[in-house]
Amino acid sequence: MKDNLDRMPEECGVFGIFGAKDVASSLYYGLISLQHRGQESAGIVVSDGKNIKSHKGIGLVDEVFKDFKSNEYKGHLGIGHVRYSTSGGGSIENCQPLLFKCKLGQAALAHNGNLVNASTLRHQLEQQGSIFHSTNDSEVIAHLLSRASSDDLEGAITSALGQVRGAYSLLLMTEDKLIAIRDPLGIRPLVLGKRGNEYIVASESCALDIVGAKMVREIEPGEMLTISSEGLQWDNILYSKKRAFCSFEYIYFSRPDSDFMGKNVHAVRKNLGKVLAKYHPAEGDIVTGVPDSSLSAAAGLAEGLGIPYESALIRNRYVGRTFIKPSQEGRIAGVNLKLNVINSVIKGKRVIMVDDSIVRGTTSRKIVEMLKQGGAKEVHVRISAPPVTHPCHLGIDTSSQGELLAANNSLKEMTKAIKADSLAFLTPKQLLEGIGVDDGLCDACFTGNYPVKMGCCK
Amino acid sequence: MKDNLDRMPEECGVFGIFGAKDVASSLYYGLISLQHRGQESAGIVVSDGKNIKSHKGIGLVDEVFKDFKSNEYKGHLGIGHVRYSTSGGGSIENCQPLLFKCKLGQAALAHNGNLVNASTLRHQLEQQGSIFHSTNDSEVIAHLLSRASSDDLEGAITSALGQVRGAYSLLLMTEDKLIAIRDPLGIRPLVLGKRGNEYIVASESCALDIVGAKMVREIEPGEMLTISSEGLQWDNILYSKKRAFCSFEYIYFSRPDSDFMGKNVHAVRKNLGKVLAKYHPAEGDIVTGVPDSSLSAAAGLAEGLGIPYESALIRNRYVGRTFIKPSQEGRIAGVNLKLNVINSVIKGKRVIMVDDSIVRGTTSRKIVEMLKQGGAKEVHVRISAPPVTHPCHLGIDTSSQGELLAANNSLKEMTKAIKADSLAFLTPKQLLEGIGVDDGLCDACFTGNYPVKMGCCK
Amino acid sequence: MKDNLDRMPEECGVFGIFGAKDVASSLYYGLISLQHRGQESAGIVVSDGKNIKSHKGIGLVDEVFKDFKSNEYKGHLGIGHVRYSTSGGGSIENCQPLLFKCKLGQAALAHNGNLVNASTLRHQLEQQGSIFHSTNDSEVIAHLLSRASSDDLEGAITSALGQVRGAYSLLLMTEDKLIAIRDPLGIRPLVLGKRGNEYIVASESCALDIVGAKMVREIEPGEMLTISSEGLQWDNILYSKKRAFCSFEYIYFSRPDSDFMGKNVHAVRKNLGKVLAKYHPAEGDIVTGVPDSSLSAAAGLAEGLGIPYESALIRNRYVGRTFIKPSQEGRIAGVNLKLNVINSVIKGKRVIMVDDSIVRGTTSRKIVEMLKQGGAKEVHVRISAPPVTHPCHLGIDTSSQGELLAANNSLKEMTKAIKADSLAFLTPKQLLEGIGVDDGLCDACFTGNYPVKMGCCK
Amino acid sequence: MKDNLDRMPEECGVFGIFGAKDVASSLYYGLISLQHRGQESAGIVVSDGKNIKSHKGIGLVDEVFKDFKSNEYKGHLGIGHVRYSTSGGGSIENCQPLLFKCKLGQAALAHNGNLVNASTLRHQLEQQGSIFHSTNDSEVIAHLLSRASSDDLEGAITSALGQVRGAYSLLLMTEDKLIAIRDPLGIRPLVLGKRGNEYIVASESCALDIVGAKMVREIEPGEMLTISSEGLQWDNILYSKKRAFCSFEYIYFSRPDSDFMGKNVHAVRKNLGKVLAKYHPAEGDIVTGVPDSSLSAAAGLAEGLGIPYESALIRNRYVGRTFIKPSQEGRIAGVNLKLNVINSVIKGKRVIMVDDSIVRGTTSRKIVEMLKQGGAKEVHVRISAPPVTHPCHLGIDTSSQGELLAANNSLKEMTKAIKADSLAFLTPKQLLEGIGVDDGLCDACFTGNYPVKMGCCK
Repeated sequence: MKDNLDRMPEECGVFGIFGAKDVASSLYYGLISLQHRGQESAGIVVSDGKNIKSHKGIGLVDEVFKDFKSNEYKGHLGIGHVRYSTSGGGSIENCQPLLFKCKLGQAALAHNGNLVNASTLRHQLEQQGSIFHSTNDSEVIAHLLSRASSDDLEGAITSALGQVRGAYSLLLMTEDKLIAIRDPLGIRPLVLGKRGNEYIVASESCALDIVGAKMVREIEPGEMLTISSEGLQWDNILYSKKRAFCSFEYIYFSRPDSDFMGKNVHAVRKNLGKVLAKYHPAEGDIVTGVPDSSLSAAAGLAEGLGIPYESALIRNRYVGRTFIKPSQEGRIAGVNLKLNVINSVIKGKRVIMVDDSIVRGTTSRKIVEMLKQGGAKEVHVRISAPPVTHPCHLGIDTSSQGELLAANNSLKEMTKAIKADSLAFLTPKQLLEGIGVDDGLCDACFTGNYPVKMGCCK
Repeated sequence: MKDNLDRMPEECGVFGIFGAKDVASSLYYGLISLQHRGQESAGIVVSDGKNIKSHKGIGLVDEVFKDFKSNEYKGHLGIGHVRYSTSGGGSIENCQPLLFKCKLGQAALAHNGNLVNASTLRHQLEQQGSIFHSTNDSEVIAHLLSRASSDDLEGAITSALGQVRGAYSLLLMTEDKLIAIRDPLGIRPLVLGKRGNEYIVASESCALDIVGAKMVREIEPGEMLTISSEGLQWDNILYSKKRAFCSFEYIYFSRPDSDFMGKNVHAVRKNLGKVLAKYHPAEGDIVTGVPDSSLSAAAGLAEGLGIPYESALIRNRYVGRTFIKPSQEGRIAGVNLKLNVINSVIKGKRVIMVDDSIVRGTTSRKIVEMLKQGGAKEVHVRISAPPVTHPCHLGIDTSSQGELLAANNSLKEMTKAIKADSLAFLTPKQLLEGIGVDDGLCDACFTGNYPVKMGCCK
Repeated sequence: MKDNLDRMPEECGVFGIFGAKDVASSLYYGLISLQHRGQESAGIVVSDGKNIKSHKGIGLVDEVFKDFKSNEYKGHLGIGHVRYSTSGGGSIENCQPLLFKCKLGQAALAHNGNLVNASTLRHQLEQQGSIFHSTNDSEVIAHLLSRASSDDLEGAITSALGQVRGAYSLLLMTEDKLIAIRDPLGIRPLVLGKRGNEYIVASESCALDIVGAKMVREIEPGEMLTISSEGLQWDNILYSKKRAFCSFEYIYFSRPDSDFMGKNVHAVRKNLGKVLAKYHPAEGDIVTGVPDSSLSAAAGLAEGLGIPYESALIRNRYVGRTFIKPSQEGRIAGVNLKLNVINSVIKGKRVIMVDDSIVRGTTSRKIVEMLKQGGAKEVHVRISAPPVTHPCHLGIDTSSQGELLAANNSLKEMTKAIKADSLAFLTPKQLLEGIGVDDGLCDACFTGNYPVKMGCCK
Repeated sequence: MKDNLDRMPEECGVFGIFGAKDVASSLYYGLISLQHRGQESAGIVVSDGKNIKSHKGIGLVDEVFKDFKSNEYKGHLGIGHVRYSTSGGGSIENCQPLLFKCKLGQAALAHNGNLVNASTLRHQLEQQGSIFHSTNDSEVIAHLLSRASSDDLEGAITSALGQVRGAYSLLLMTEDKLIAIRDPLGIRPLVLGKRGNEYIVASESCALDIVGAKMVREIEPGEMLTISSEGLQWDNILYSKKRAFCSFEYIYFSRPDSDFMGKNVHAVRKNLGKVLAKYHPAEGDIVTGVPDSSLSAAAGLAEGLGIPYESALIRNRYVGRTFIKPSQEGRIAGVNLKLNVINSVIKGKRVIMVDDSIVRGTTSRKIVEMLKQGGAKEVHVRISAPPVTHPCHLGIDTSSQGELLAANNSLKEMTKAIKADSLAFLTPKQLLEGIGVDDGLCDACFTGNYPVKMGCCK
C-alpha cells in the first residue's frame, strides 16, 4: 500500500535469476520481498533460452500475479521489477521490465534509479528519429543500446551507459544472458546471491533470504556482471573514485533485515537512535517510535537514554487501496486510518517520539496531536536523520523544495509547526557516525551537494 | 492474509452503526480495522429505514469493496462482518451478514462465535421443514427467530437464544433497528461506542478509534441493546452468574490497541511477559519476539529479566494470497516466506524467543532452526500462555486434539520436538495473574473445563 | 444481450443431464444454446453421486464460466439454468439452480415459469416460520418440499406441487437422481433427449442438438420423470384435462430450430406469415422482417403474397451490455444501435414490414421512421400474432396493462401511433390456424382468458 | 467471437472522429459496429487538444470498455481500432491505436491492412538503431515517420509512406489533428462521414449510420485528408493508376448494410447469387445459405432459379470465447456448436446450399454432412466467389497455400472432398459481373496476380 505518512516514497526494486529450473516462482517471491520498494506496478520477463515472455500489470505483486499462468512461463532465466510510480506513471506502458527488439536481438530491461540527463537524451534521441512509448528512463537506455555503433551487447552497454548520468541499478536480459550493472557512484543498491548453481541479483539482500539464497557480494559501483551458461564474468566498465550510496536506504527505504556494505539496516537504525541519545537527549518517561520504519531507531534511543521503550502507536495493517470517500463529517481521515494510539501507555507521560524523517511535516503534526489527545503530557520529537532541505533527483520522489518543511523554516518554527515540545535532528556528521562510515554516502537531500552534475549538459 | 504461522486462527469480527448520515464508509473502515479477525470474506448490510441492501464477497475487505458503488448504499444504519472460514466455508453462501425475510419482516444477522448445539438444532429444524443454504450458525439462529411463537422481535430473540448454547456476539438489524446481543458467559467481546449522535457496536475498541468514536462501555454478558430512532434500550435477556471471556482474545486475537474490561491488550501482553520473567526466567543475551502478536510479551520479558530486547525476526508484510507453487527444489516454503532472521543481531548470542502459543509445534521448530542457522548459540523459548491441550468449540478453529503438541507430549518431549534449549509456558494461574483478574476467563483450551456443556443435549 | 426492441422478454431456460462421464461441458453448451431464454444470470449444479456443488453468477453463460474450474466439477448428473431477471432480481441470491439442504437431504432446483399464488404461499410459509433469502418462486417450492409430511422425495413433490398454481417446468436434483416435472397445463416446454446411455432434459430441442442428443419425447403436462441409476420412471402426478402451451413460445421465444408438439418453430412462423398473407394482404413492392425472430414469418408472407422478400433491416450483432451514456447530442440512441436500414433496398418502394408483436409500440414506430427516412414510399406493418392486450402472469415479464398499446387503442389509433400506412394483426383464431392446432394453447395475453385462476385463493 | 467456420478471417477496423463535444461514446459505438472486422483487441485514443490519452485491451469492445471511465477521456478528437490477431499477436503490446512520442510530437496510429515489405523495413530500421515493442506494421510506420528528414508532419507522412508497399487505411492523430490516408491502390476501404459540424472517418459506412452521421464520400486511393480546427484539407500524396479494392470486402468481410463505390454490399451479394443462377444452375427443391454472410447470395440464387429460399441452417448466436473442453465422447465439437439444421425443412429435399467461400473445405464438408444426416436427398453446393487458390498478403490471414483446398484439387476432387452431389464456383470474370464493375478489384487470392510486388525489394 502507498504510505500516506509523508515519508520519502520508495522508488523501485529489481530481481533477476539465472540457472533455475523454474524461475517464475522465484521471481514472484523475490518481488514480494521487495514490494516495499514500489507498489504501483509489477512485472517479470522469463526466457527458456530461446523465447522471452513478459507478464506485467498495475497493482501489487499479488494482484498482478492473480491470473498468472505459471506453466506458460517456463524458463531458466528471468528478471522482475516492482515500481513506485512518480508523476503520471500509472499506465501499463510504464510497467517494467521493458521488453524490446533491436539489432542486438531481443532484450529486457529493469531499472532502479533515476537519470538526471534523461530529458536531454530523450530530446536528442527524438531528433535522431527515435520514438517513445513511455516516460521511463529505461526506454532511454534501450534506445542508447540500440543505437550504439557496437554490434556486441557488451560494447553497446559501455557506449550507452557512457552517455547517461545519475543513479541506476540495472538488470538487462537477453534470451540467454543476465547482465547486472551498477552506476559508478553506487547510488542504488544491488547484491549478488547464490543458491546451488543458480545466481540471483536483487536490490536488497532480504530478497536473497526469501528464496533461500546466500549473499555472495554486492555488485560494486561501475561493475558489470554477465551471467550465462559459461558462468560469471565481471567487468569494470564505468569508473569514479567517488562513492555516493543513498543514505536513505539505511534511514528508511530498505527492509531492516537487509545488509549493505556489511552493515545490517536494523543495526544501523538502532545505532542512529543511540547517536540521537548521545547528542540530542530529551527528558521523558517513555520512548516510542512511528511504525514500522522508526522502531529500530526508537529502541536505540531508549537504550541510549536508559528510558523504557513502549509501543504507543499501532499500525493498521490492512488499510488499503480502495478509498471510499469518508463521510462528510470528516472525522475519518488521513493519519488515523493508518495509526492508532494506545492511550493507557502514554497517559500522563512525557513521550519521546522517534521518526525517521520530516518531509512536509503534516504527518508529524498529526501524530503529535494524537499523542496529546491520548493524554501525553509532553511530546518530544527526535528524528533519526538530518533535516531534508533539498529534493532528490536520483530516484526518490520527494516533494519539491517549496514543500519541504526544513527548507523554509528554522528549528524553532518547525517545532511549533508540528506542535511538539521539543524537536531535534541528527546532523549530517552524526548521521555518518551512526551509520559507522567516514564517507561514501549521498547526503544531497540534507546538504544540496549532489554527487552528479545536475542540469542539461553532460 | 491467512497466517500460516501455526497460531490459533481468528474467527470473525462484527461492526454496526446507527444514526450516521452515510454509513457505508464507516462500515468499510470499521471492517478494515477488524480485518485481523477474519480474512476469508466480508460483507455489509445497509438500510435507509425502508430498504435493506447487502454487499458481500469472498476476499479481504479491500477486494470485496473494489467495485462497491457507495451511492447505491445510502442509509443511516448498517452492520458488517469479516469472516474466518472454517471447514468448507469459502463459498459465497457462507458470507455474512445473512439477509433474510420472515414473518417478522426483513432482517440481517452478523455473528461472531460458535454454537455447540448447532448441529442438533439444525437437525431438529430440518425435521420441522426448514431448509438451509449455508453451513453458518447464523442461519440456525435466523430459523429459530422466524419460528418463535412471539410476533414481536424482542420476544422472538429471547425465545431463539434460549435454545442455543455457546459463544455469540450478535448484531441483528431490521429496516430501522440495530440490536446487539452478547452470550450469557460473555465469551466473545462486543463494545459500544458513540460519535456525536451516532452509536457504534463492534468486536473491538480499535474499530471505534478508526471511525473517531469514543468507547461508551462493553455490552455485558446476557445483555441485549436495541438502538432505534427512540434511543437506546438495554435488556437483560439471558442470565448466567458465570463469566467466561476468551483468554485468547488477550493472548493473541485482538489488536494491541483494543481494550477489554478496562485493560489494554498490549499492556496485558507486556505483563504476561513480566510474569514469564518472574516464574520462568532464562539465561540469555537478548530477548526477541515472533512478530507481530508476541512483541508486547517479549518486551515485557526483556524488561522483567533486564536483558535487551532485540528485533531479530522480521515479518514480510506482503506475502499474500496468490500462491505460486514453489519450485521443485523445495527451498522456498512455509515459514521463511513469512519471517526472516537478522543474523547480525543473534550471531553468537543466547536468544530468548517469546511466542504466544504453540499449537502443532511445526512453526516453533522452524523458527528455532532459523535462529540457530542464523548463528544463535542457544535458543530458549518462552510462551506467554499455558500449553494448548484441548480444542476450542467456542469460535476458534484449532487443530483437533490429536494434532496439539502439548496434548500428547511432556514438556521435555516438546522441548526436543521444537529443538529448543529450553522451553517454558505460563500456568493457567500465572495467566490470570498476568491478565490481572481472579476469575471470569475461559481457559478450556488449557484445562478442558468448557464453560458450556458440550454434546448434543441441552 | 437484453433486447431493447420492445419485445416480450424471455423468461428462463433449464437443462439437466444424467449418466455422462463429465457433465460440466454438456451443461455449459446446453445453457449456451438456451441463452436466448435468459441473459441475466446462469448457473449449474453438479453431483458425482455423493457431493453436490454449484457454480453460479450474474451475466451471460460465457461470463459466468470464464473462471470455471472444470476439474473441480466432476460428476455424472447435473442441472443448469439461465435466468431472465424480472423486477429487482439482478442479485446473486436470485441465481438458480437453488441449492439447499432439508430433511430429505441435499437438493437443487431449477425452474422455468411463474406461480400465480407464490406471494400467498410465501406469506403462509413465513407465518409458519420459514425464512426467505431470494424473491424466486423456486424458493417457495423448496420450502413446500421441505415441509411436506412425506418422508420420501416423490411424496414430498406431489404434496408440494399440489399447493402451487401456475406455470412450471422444473428440474429437481439430489445427489443421485434427476427429476423433471411439467405443470398440469404444460404451459412451459420441457423435452427429453438421449445420447448413448445418457439422458438429457431441456427447455428446447435445440439444446439436445448442440450436445448431439436425439429427441425422445416431450415431458407431458402433469408428468414427473425420475432418472436414476435404475433407469427412467414415469409418473403422472398432476392432472388437468386442459392444455395451455404458451403460444409465444412459437411466436417469439423459442429458437427457430426447436420443435414443440412435433411442429418446428421456424415452420410454424413461416406459416403464420402465410396466414397473414391470406387474411391481411397488403399492396407492396417488397416484404421485409425485423431480425431475428420475424424473418421466418416475413418469408412466409412474401411467399404467400408472391412479393419478393428483401433484407432491409440489419441487426448489429455486437451491441452489448456496456452502456456508455451516449453524447448529449442524443443522436446515438435506442433502436438504431440495434438495427440499421439498407436504404438502397427500400428507396422508393412500398415496404411490407413483418414483426412478431407490438408491446408498447415505441420500437415499431422507430423502425417505421427509419424505413421512411431510408426512402420507403409506404410502410405497411403486419404482425404475426394477435394484439397483446393483457399482461402475462405465467412466466413472461410483459409491461403492465397500462403500457400495452393494444390494450388502450383502436387499430386506427395504433396505426397512427406507429406512423404506419397500414397495420394488421392475426386474430386468435388465425393464430391457431397458423400453428396448425385446434386448441391447447394459452392465449391469455390476447384474450384475458387465463388458464389458471388468478388471485390469492386456490 | 472468432469464427471457426473456416472463412477468410477479418482483419481490422478503424474509426476516427473530429469536432465532437464528447468523442468517447462515439468511438465506442463506432467500434461496436466494426466489431465483425476484428475481435481480438480494441482501443481508443482521445485528445482534448492538449493531452492524448489511450484506453486499450484484449477482448471484445464490450469487454475492453467494461471498466472504462468516460469522464477521464474528455476530448474533441479521437481514433479507435479493432484488431484481428494474426500470428502470436494476442498481447497487449500489439493492441492499437499505437501511441508514441517523437520529434514531431505526440501521435497515435490506427492501421487496417498489411505491408508486404514490413520485415525488410523492420530489419533496416533495427540496423539504424530503432527498437521495437510489438510485431505490428503500425510500429514500422511510426518509426519511418519519426526518422523522416522533414520536420512537418505532412512531409514526414509523404516520406514514410513512400517507403512502404502494401495495403493500408491509416488514421493518424496528433493533439489537434486527425489525418486519414488510403494506400494508392485503395485495397482496404475508408469512408468519410459528417454529423453536424463533426467529421467521422471509418472502415465502413455502417459505422457512420450507428452514430447518426451521413456519408460524404470515400477517401480515394492515395489521398490524405487532414481534419483540424481549420477544416478539411485534401492532398493527393501517392499515385497509382491501378485500383485494387479487395473483392472479399464485398464477398464476405463487410457488413451487408455498408456501401463501397456506391454499391451496397447486400445488393452485390444478392447479385452474385443471381450470377450463380445464370452460369451455374442446379436442380433442387430449396435453396439455403450458410448464415450470416451467405444469406444474401442464397436469396439471389433462389430468386434467379425460381426455387424457394428456406432457412435450413440456424446459427447459435451465443457460442462464445470460453471454451470448455468438450467431453471425451467427442460428440460436441466444431461446426455443430455454431450451426444447427432444421430437419423438417430439408427432409427428402434436394438442397442447394450457398456459401461464400471454401478455404480448407473442412467446414463445407461438415455442413454437407449435417444436411444429409438431417434428411436432405441431395446437396448441391454453390459458392458465390471463385476458388481461393493463393494466400492473401494484403491484410487477410488466409491459410498457407498448402492448406487451400482449391490450390491442390480439381473441381471433381473438391466435390468429393466435401461430399457434395455437385459443386460450382463463380469465375473471376463472373465475380466482376456480379459486383457490376469491369476492373479495379484485387483478385489475387483467386488468380495469384498480386497488385503489388511481393518479396523483399521495393
